Amino acid sequence: MNFVEVIARKRDGSELSADDVGAFVRGASSGQVADEQLAAMLMAICIRGASRGETRLLVEAMRDSGALWKTGEAFPDAVDKHSTGGVGDTVSLVFAPLVAACGVPVVMMAGAGLGHTQGTLDKLAAIPGFRTAGSRAEAFDHLARCGAFFAAQSQEIAPADRKLYLLRDVTATVPSLPLIVASIMSKKLAVGARRLVLDVKCGSGAFCKTPEEARALAEALVGVGEGAGVAVAAMITDMSQPLGDRLGCASEVRAAVEVLGGGGDARLRQLTVELAADALRMAGRPRSAALAEVERALANGSALARYGEIVRAHGGDPDVARLPRPRRTIPVGAPRDGFVAAIEAEALGWIAVGLGAGRQRQGDQVDLAAGVKVQARTGDMVEAGQPLATLELGERPVDVETMAARAAAAFRIADERPPAAPLVIARLGGAA
Amino acid sequence: MNFVEVIARKRDGSELSADDVGAFVRGASSGQVADEQLAAMLMAICIRGASRGETRLLVEAMRDSGALWKTGEAFPDAVDKHSTGGVGDTVSLVFAPLVAACGVPVVMMAGAGLGHTQGTLDKLAAIPGFRTAGSRAEAFDHLARCGAFFAAQSQEIAPADRKLYLLRDVTATVPSLPLIVASIMSKKLAVGARRLVLDVKCGSGAFCKTPEEARALAEALVGVGEGAGVAVAAMITDMSQPLGDRLGCASEVRAAVEVLGGGGDARLRQLTVELAADALRMAGRPRSAALAEVERALANGSALARYGEIVRAHGGDPDVARLPRPRRTIPVGAPRDGFVAAIEAEALGWIAVGLGAGRQRQGDQVDLAAGVKVQARTGDMVEAGQPLATLELGERPVDVETMAARAAAAFRIADERPPAAPLVIARLGGAA
Repeated sequence: MNFVEVIARKRDGSELSADDVGAFVRGASSGQVADEQLAAMLMAICIRGASRGETRLLVEAMRDSGALWKTGEAFPDAVDKHSTGGVGDTVSLVFAPLVAACGVPVVMMAGAGLGHTQGTLDKLAAIPGFRTAGSRAEAFDHLARCGAFFAAQSQEIAPADRKLYLLRDVTATVPSLPLIVASIMSKKLAVGARRLVLDVKCGSGAFCKTPEEARALAEALVGVGEGAGVAVAAMITDMSQPLGDRLGCASEVRAAVEVLGGGGDARLRQLTVELAADALRMAGRPRSAALAEVERALANGSALARYGEIVRAHGGDPDVARLPRPRRTIPVGAPRDGFVAAIEAEALGWIAVGLGAGRQRQGDQVDLAAGVKVQARTGDMVEAGQPLATLELGERPVDVETMAARAAAAFRIADERPPAAPLVIARLGGAA
Repeated sequence: MNFVEVIARKRDGSELSADDVGAFVRGASSGQVADEQLAAMLMAICIRGASRGETRLLVEAMRDSGALWKTGEAFPDAVDKHSTGGVGDTVSLVFAPLVAACGVPVVMMAGAGLGHTQGTLDKLAAIPGFRTAGSRAEAFDHLARCGAFFAAQSQEIAPADRKLYLLRDVTATVPSLPLIVASIMSKKLAVGARRLVLDVKCGSGAFCKTPEEARALAEALVGVGEGAGVAVAAMITDMSQPLGDRLGCASEVRAAVEVLGGGGDARLRQLTVELAADALRMAGRPRSAALAEVERALANGSALARYGEIVRAHGGDPDVARLPRPRRTIPVGAPRDGFVAAIEAEALGWIAVGLGAGRQRQGDQVDLAAGVKVQARTGDMVEAGQPLATLELGERPVDVETMAARAAAAFRIADERPPAAPLVIARLGGAA
């Protein structure tokens, strides 16, 4: 097959065949199609879009480009969880021990931080000694022993996605719904849990800026999952401000442990409880029983105990006192009296990255102690000088004044209290 | 500048700034923008298009990526000629000596064959000893001594175009009007003649299949040329069948010499005379006087004599007896009585390439003796068995029966004579 002709078909808006999609995806993972040809195809898909059929073909071809873990065969009840990426989103670190404590096995393929968000993989690196599962056998062993595993997204799972993702990042083809769906779902289906809890973020800090965009993405993800025999419960949730009150690796581990201990940030707690209840409902519990069971696990210490077991199973030390701490903290005060009308989550995310909590380019070292603590939330009344946030500095030298000014500018102060926005905007799939 | 942001602007259909276009073109010629990023940008331009302003910026940036010959400063009357590429199009080899014999200097930047067409550079290689001008100094010396030069498109002229062209070829981004305009005009403006004669082909054997497409391309080329202070005379001409009756390198040189000697193929002769008359009109002659002067140069032997001078100046031997000859010829007979209703020029072009007269991939050796002789033209009455064409075989081993069957299939035989189609479909710019 001449791959130029395949590119030309998508360029002209024609429907790609299974052979066309196969040539594209196999060409990506084998290296037989040149990077410039893959890039041209990605841009054609980005602009022309892809039908449901083409998206399904993409997902299947990318899934089949690597190993299939078939987790659902060994653990039929196992649930996978995915978030489309937000700021201060520490849900995974709470969700896994919480749901496992309720008797439902949890699969966690963790990724590194991307853009303005911090990745679960980087947060886990803040836990002394923690090693993600390095193989299917090790992951399944963790799952059998403590009900959850954390594994790093590896070359073994959907290698075509890895190749295409690196290209998308440099060719302005990241924001394409079918490519996003294919990237997420190919990996989920390759790991092979039969249940999936999805958190689609919506708002200024997320890829989907509007509820319409978030709904389109959520529907596509649910459609592909259910089409492949996976039960999917999806929520569209608010990312018009950071989810939790901490941004940064060690800081977010601390935030997770606080929630697991029965306290913690209210919004982080609420969303994790909702998602965990969905996971329990998919395992057969009625909704009211599911919510009660999740709350009980937080209240009676079993979730926190399970966190310790999971961390130790992965070679880590669950003692929060041993987490890295910031070298210095810089308070950011409110410029005037008023109400917090909005918080630019993406801007705060980039500030945390600038302090060292994420990567500005591939290969950058992450500073585990760096981050931002958010001390005023949307709707809060503040007085001039009252701390809106605190910059947590690690080892990286930064221009403190510029960073503090940028952080202050991320908070919009108004004279009137803004209307309250719901955290869970909509539910789709098995949770609807 | 972050080039991903530039790609994103074109992806979303925004207007590119001069800085954006400069980053793209300089990135291409310097190698500082990766091939996959250039490819994504090319596809975005191919699908989204480009405004007149963006096209002008592209042309200027690509022109300025290499040397500027400023031919018009040394030779204000010099005329350049360009064809968008057709089958059996031997015009350049006739035009240069013919126009030079009429006292107007001719600039010829010759390219290698591409796709199903044969290139002037390959045809010149059939002339024993012929060496294209290797530098501006040598080209200007030829121009001063014999009124014309042939130079090979070099790395020196518009290197950004060379880089982008190679990428377009493998990324299905060749058929983009602004990219075609930029590729053609950047090179023309870098050579810098102040007058340009354009032949925009239209029909089954050309890039532009319809008169509307050809008109859009011609208008864009004229617009960019005139905007840069170059007088442009453009014709849209018929490529629904091969222009001349010969396809192949040595064979087309012979066809050119026949026309220069006062005979030759009627269609090749007619089009060359029209284009040459345009060149003379741009140099100030009234239309009737221009046509008469061109006809006189063909009739009195001065054009043929000038051909000998130009070939000798380039180190070549003008004796046609010394041109390579086919090793073997295979006649292709008409399958039945009737009229030639259509000739698929592109199919015949690919057959000639298959015999060795062109390149199936970059770096292929061209067989100078191979080609196709067309013996029946659209509108001709033919009897079963009468030769429609003759395959001229060189050294390359070919499946003769398959080739002959493909050649016969390129001629559509009907019961009725088709309506006559004009050779010159329209005129634009200085010639309108």
